[in-house]
Amino acid sequence: MSFRDLLLGKPIPTAEERQQKIGTLEGIPVFGLDALGSAAYGPEAALTLLLPLGVAGLRYIVPISVCIIALLAIVFFSYRQTIAAYPGGGGSYTVASENLGPFPGLLAAAALMIDYILVVAVGISAGVGALVSAVPSLLPHTLGLCLAILFLITLVNLRGVRETGLAFMAPTYVFVATLLGTIAFGVVKSVLAGGHPAPIAAPPAAASASVAVAGGWLLLQSFANGCTAMTGVEAVSNGVRTFRDPRVPNAQRTLTTIIGILIVMLAGIAYLAHAYGIVATRPGAPGYQSVLSMLVAAVAGRGAFYYVTIASILAVLALQANTAFADFPRVCRAVAQNSFLPHTFRYRGRRLVYSEGILVLAAIAGVLLVIFGGVTDRLIPLFAIGAFLAFTMSQAGMVGHWKRQGGRRSRHFMIINAAGAVATGITALIVLVAKFTQGAWVTAILIPALLALMITVRRHYRRTERELDAANALKLKAPERPLVVLAYEAWNKVAENALQFALTLSPEVHAVHVTAEDESCERLLSEWNSRVVAPLRASGMPEPKLVRLPSPYRAVLSPIVSYVLELEVAHPGRLVAVLVPELVETRWYHYLLRTNRAELLKAMLIGKGNQKIVVISLPWYLD
Amino acid sequence: MSFRDLLLGKPIPTAEERQQKIGTLEGIPVFGLDALGSAAYGPEAALTLLLPLGVAGLRYIVPISVCIIALLAIVFFSYRQTIAAYPGGGGSYTVASENLGPFPGLLAAAALMIDYILVVAVGISAGVGALVSAVPSLLPHTLGLCLAILFLITLVNLRGVRETGLAFMAPTYVFVATLLGTIAFGVVKSVLAGGHPAPIAAPPAAASASVAVAGGWLLLQSFANGCTAMTGVEAVSNGVRTFRDPRVPNAQRTLTTIIGILIVMLAGIAYLAHAYGIVATRPGAPGYQSVLSMLVAAVAGRGAFYYVTIASILAVLALQANTAFADFPRVCRAVAQNSFLPHTFRYRGRRLVYSEGILVLAAIAGVLLVIFGGVTDRLIPLFAIGAFLAFTMSQAGMVGHWKRQGGRRSRHFMIINAAGAVATGITALIVLVAKFTQGAWVTAILIPALLALMITVRRHYRRTERELDAANALKLKAPERPLVVLAYEAWNKVAENALQFALTLSPEVHAVHVTAEDESCERLLSEWNSRVVAPLRASGMPEPKLVRLPSPYRAVLSPIVSYVLELEVAHPGRLVAVLVPELVETRWYHYLLRTNRAELLKAMLIGKGNQKIVVISLPWYLD
Repeated sequence: MSFRDLLLGKPIPTAEERQQKIGTLEGIPVFGLDALGSAAYGPEAALTLLLPLGVAGLRYIVPISVCIIALLAIVFFSYRQTIAAYPGGGGSYTVASENLGPFPGLLAAAALMIDYILVVAVGISAGVGALVSAVPSLLPHTLGLCLAILFLITLVNLRGVRETGLAFMAPTYVFVATLLGTIAFGVVKSVLAGGHPAPIAAPPAAASASVAVAGGWLLLQSFANGCTAMTGVEAVSNGVRTFRDPRVPNAQRTLTTIIGILIVMLAGIAYLAHAYGIVATRPGAPGYQSVLSMLVAAVAGRGAFYYVTIASILAVLALQANTAFADFPRVCRAVAQNSFLPHTFRYRGRRLVYSEGILVLAAIAGVLLVIFGGVTDRLIPLFAIGAFLAFTMSQAGMVGHWKRQGGRRSRHFMIINAAGAVATGITALIVLVAKFTQGAWVTAILIPALLALMITVRRHYRRTERELDAANALKLKAPERPLVVLAYEAWNKVAENALQFALTLSPEVHAVHVTAEDESCERLLSEWNSRVVAPLRASGMPEPKLVRLPSPYRAVLSPIVSYVLELEVAHPGRLVAVLVPELVETRWYHYLLRTNRAELLKAMLIGKGNQKIVVISLPWYLD
Repeated sequence: MSFRDLLLGKPIPTAEERQQKIGTLEGIPVFGLDALGSAAYGPEAALTLLLPLGVAGLRYIVPISVCIIALLAIVFFSYRQTIAAYPGGGGSYTVASENLGPFPGLLAAAALMIDYILVVAVGISAGVGALVSAVPSLLPHTLGLCLAILFLITLVNLRGVRETGLAFMAPTYVFVATLLGTIAFGVVKSVLAGGHPAPIAAPPAAASASVAVAGGWLLLQSFANGCTAMTGVEAVSNGVRTFRDPRVPNAQRTLTTIIGILIVMLAGIAYLAHAYGIVATRPGAPGYQSVLSMLVAAVAGRGAFYYVTIASILAVLALQANTAFADFPRVCRAVAQNSFLPHTFRYRGRRLVYSEGILVLAAIAGVLLVIFGGVTDRLIPLFAIGAFLAFTMSQAGMVGHWKRQGGRRSRHFMIINAAGAVATGITALIVLVAKFTQGAWVTAILIPALLALMITVRRHYRRTERELDAANALKLKAPERPLVVLAYEAWNKVAENALQFALTLSPEVHAVHVTAEDESCERLLSEWNSRVVAPLRASGMPEPKLVRLPSPYRAVLSPIVSYVLELEVAHPGRLVAVLVPELVETRWYHYLLRTNRAELLKAMLIGKGNQKIVVISLPWYLD
C-alpha cells in the first residue's frame, strides 16, 4: 500500500459509485454542519446588537427569532422544492440559470462561492478562537491550529463523501444531542417554574441600558445579524446526486431533519434566553462569555455535561467548514460544465469527489487564514451577503419555475417563493447597508470581479472551440516526407538510434551540430564520414547532411532553434520534424548531472515554433 | 534593452573575449582582496592568542610575523612558478593532479572549494559584524545586510571579470593607500622617536599577564592563527587565463604586487604594534577594539583619516568574498573538465564567466549565512585548513614538476618547494589540531565527503559514456514504418492535422480515445466514420483504427500509456510512435485554463516507456 493510498484511500472505480452514496445519517454531518453550527452564533449575533437596551432588549429576542424562523421556513420550503425539481443538483446556480438566464445564475454561483470560501476561513477561526479563549496557553498557536484543522478537513473530504459523513458523525450528533437536551430540560424547568426558572449557575447581570427605546433600525440590524443563522440552508440542494436512491426523498428528508433541528434550537435558545434573562456580553471585553455558555450553565450547571456540550459546540463551529467543502466543488463543477470555469473542475478524482475544487477551496481559505493570522473577525461582515444573494436568486428562479409549470398548486408555491425572494432580497440589502463600511463593500467588489472572470473564461473556451472547429471531412494530402532535423552531438549509440529513425522518416536529414568554444571539428568530421556516410554510400542510400552551426554567444540550443525556423521559412508548406534524442536517467538524482538540454530544446521549439514544426523525443534509457 | 540586459549586461560574443581580459590594475581587486583583507585580521588573530601574556606578549609578535612572512614568501614563490608552468590556470588542482595523480588533485580542489565557500560567508559576515559594532542601530539587520552584500558581489561577478575589477577598484586602492600611509607615517615617527613614539590616541593599557612565560604550544598556536593572513595567495594562479597577453608576466606581476603589499602590511603592523605597545583586546568583551583601529588611532589620531581608513577596512573585509567568486567557478570548471563535477560548470555564460559556479557559490554561502543568522564566528576555525591543505598539495606537486624538469636550477627550486610543502603541511596540521574541537573536525568530514561526491560523479559520467559508446559504423536497417498511436479527443482541426501527419508516418495508425464518465460515443463514432473513414475509403487509402479505451478509475492519460506499452509488447522490435497533439497558448495565463494533459502524457510516456517508444509533439498554435 503506497503512502498516497494510505493518505487518500485507494482509488474507487466509477462502477462502485453506488457504495459511495450517502443516506440521511451521513448527510447531516456532510451538508448540515454549516446550518446547525449557525445556532451557536446566530442568536448571539442578534442579542449582541440588543446590548444597548440592557435587560429590556430581551423583550425583542422572541419576536425577532420568530421572524427569522419564519424566513427560514420559507427558504427551507423553497429548497425542498428545488431538490425535487432539480434532482441533478447544482442548487441555486442551476435554478437561477435555468429560469432567469445565465447571468443571474452566475451571480448566484459567484455569491455562493465567496460565501463558501468565507465559511471555511471564518468557521475554522471561530472554532479555534473559542478554543484558545478557553485554553489561553494555546493562543500563540492560533494560526497553526487553524491550518491543522483546514488540512484535516481537506484530507477527509479528499477521501470521499461517505468517509466524510462517517468521520464527522460523532461531533455532529453529540452537539445535536447535548444542545437539544439542554433546551428540553430548560423548557421543562421553565414551564414548571411558571416561566421564571432559577438558574443553576446565574448569568452575569446585564449592564444598565444606554438606550431607552429600541429604534426600528436597531431591530432591523439585530434581525439581519440573526439571519446569519440561515446560512447553509442551500447546502443539500447542491449535492442531491450524492444521495442513495431514491435520492430525492433521501435528500429532502436530510434537509427537513437539518432545518427541523435548527428551528427547534433557534426557538429554544430564544425562549430560554428570555426566560433566564440572558443578555449578551460584549465580545472582546473582559468577562465575555458566549450566550450558549451562559445558557447551558444556567440550565445544567457547570458540571461534566457543560464541558461536553461546550466542547461539541467548539467542534461544530470549526467543522462548519465541512459544508463548504461538500458544496463549493459541486458549484464549481456545475459552473465548469457550462465552461464558465476551467474544465478541470469537472473531473472526479480518485475517491469520486471533485478533488480540484476541494484543493482550490483549501488553498484560498488557507491564504485567507495566513493573511489574517488565524483571526478572521474582520471577514464576518462579508459573510452572510453571499448566502442571501444566492437565496434571493434561487427563490426568484423558483418563481419562474412554477410560472412555467402552471396549474393551481404551482401558483400557490409561486406566491410563497416570491414572498421568500422579496424577504431574502431585503435581508441581503439590510446586511449590505448595515455592514457596508465594516467591510461588506469588499463583497460588492469581489462578486462582480468573479463574474467578470467567469465570463472571460467562457469567452476563451468558446473562441478556442470556434478556432478548432472543423466542419469538413479529412482533407487528404499527397503524403510528403518531412524535412528532418536531428540534434547531433557526437557519434554514439544515441546518435545511431536517432539516425536510424530519421532515415525511416525521410531521405532528407539534416544533422545539426553546434560547435562549442575552441572545438576542433576534425574528430566529428572523420567519425561522420567513416561511421555514417561510408555505409550509406556503399548501399546507395540517401546521405544525411552534417550542418555545423557556429555559436558566437556560446549558446548551445538557440542556434538549433534558429536553424529550424530558417529551414521552415525556406521550405514553405513543408513539415519540419525535429528529432531530439533524450537520455532518460533511472534515478532522479542523476538528473542533477545532466544539462537538461533535451527538455529545454523541446520547450524552446514549441514556444517559438509554428504549426509546420513537429518535435520528436527519442528517449534513450540508461541502465 | 531588456531587464536582464540591464541587470547582467548584454551578452558578449566569444570573439570579443580579448576586450574582457584584465591587467594588473583590475587584477588586484579581482584576485587580491582575500589576501589583502587578511592583513586586517591575521595579525589580530596572532595577537589575540598572546593576550594571556599581557604586555610581555608583544615581545613575540615580531618573530612570529617574521616566520609568517617567510612562509608567505615561499608559498608566493611557489605560485609564481606555478603560473609560469601552468599558464592555462587551474592552480593547485592542476599542479597536484598533473604531478601527484588525480586523487591528490581532487583533495586540493575539495579543500580549496570549501575554503572559498567559507571565505564568502565569513568574509561578508566579518565586514558586516565590524559595521554593526560601529553602528549598533544596524544590528537587527545583520542578516539582511549580509545577503544584500552577497547579492551585490554575485551580480557584479555575473557581469564579467572586467566589470568586477573596475567595480571594486576604489575600495581596494583606498584601503591599500590609507593602510600603507599609516604604516609609513608610523614607522617614520617611530624611527625619529628612537623606537618609542608617543601615540596620538593612546591604546588601552594591556591587562595584567595571567601567564608568565610563553609555552611553545601557545606560540605555535599564535603562529597558526596568524597564518590565516596567507589565505588567498593561490588566487591568481587559478585565473591566469583572464589576464591580457602576455598573460604569464601580467599574472605574475599582479601576484607579486599583491604579496608585496601584504608583506609590507604584515611587517609594518607587527613593528608598529610592538613600537606603540598595542595589545589585542578580548573580542566580544566590553571595550573591544580591533588592533588596526588602535594602531591607526595611535599613529594618526581619530580624525577624518581614521574614519576613511576604518571604512575602507570594513569594505575590504566584506569584499574579500570577491576573490572566492573569481576562483571557485574556475576551480569547478577545471574539475568538471575531468568529469568530476557536473559538466554544466564548464560552460561560460553570457558575460564570459562561469556563471553556474558563481550561482552555486552564492547559493551555498547564502544558505550558510541564513543558517548562522549572518554571524559566522563559529565557522572561522574551519577556514584556514582548506587553504593550507591546498598549499601543501600544490607545493608537493611543484616538487614533482621540478623533478621531472631536471637540471641544476630545477633542483634549487625543488628544495624550496619541498621546504614549503613541509612547512605548510605542518601548519595545516597545527591548525587542525589546535582547532579540532572548536569545529575543525567538520572540515575533516566535509573534505572526504566532497571527494566521494566527485568520484561518484565521475563514475556516473564514465558509465554513461561506456554505455553510449558506439565503436561500430551505422547499422543499416530495413526502413520499417512505425506503429502510430494518436491521442484522439474529438474531430476538430487539431485532430485533422494530427491524422494527416500520422498517415505520412505509417499506414498503421491507432487513434485512441479514452471514454469519459457517462460519455455516449455515438457522436464520436459517427464523426469518425463520416469525417475520417469515408474519404480514406473512397480514395482506397489505409484506414486508421479507432480504439476506445475504458477508464474505470476516470484517469484520462494512464489508459493511453498502458495501451502503448501493451502495443509495444505485442509487436516486439517494432517502433511505436505516439502522436500527442498539443494546444499552444499565446498568453501564459491561458495555461491556467488548460488541463496540461499533453505535457503530462509526454512525461508519462517518457517516464514509463522504453527505447522502442518515441513521442511526437504536434503543436497547434491558438491565435
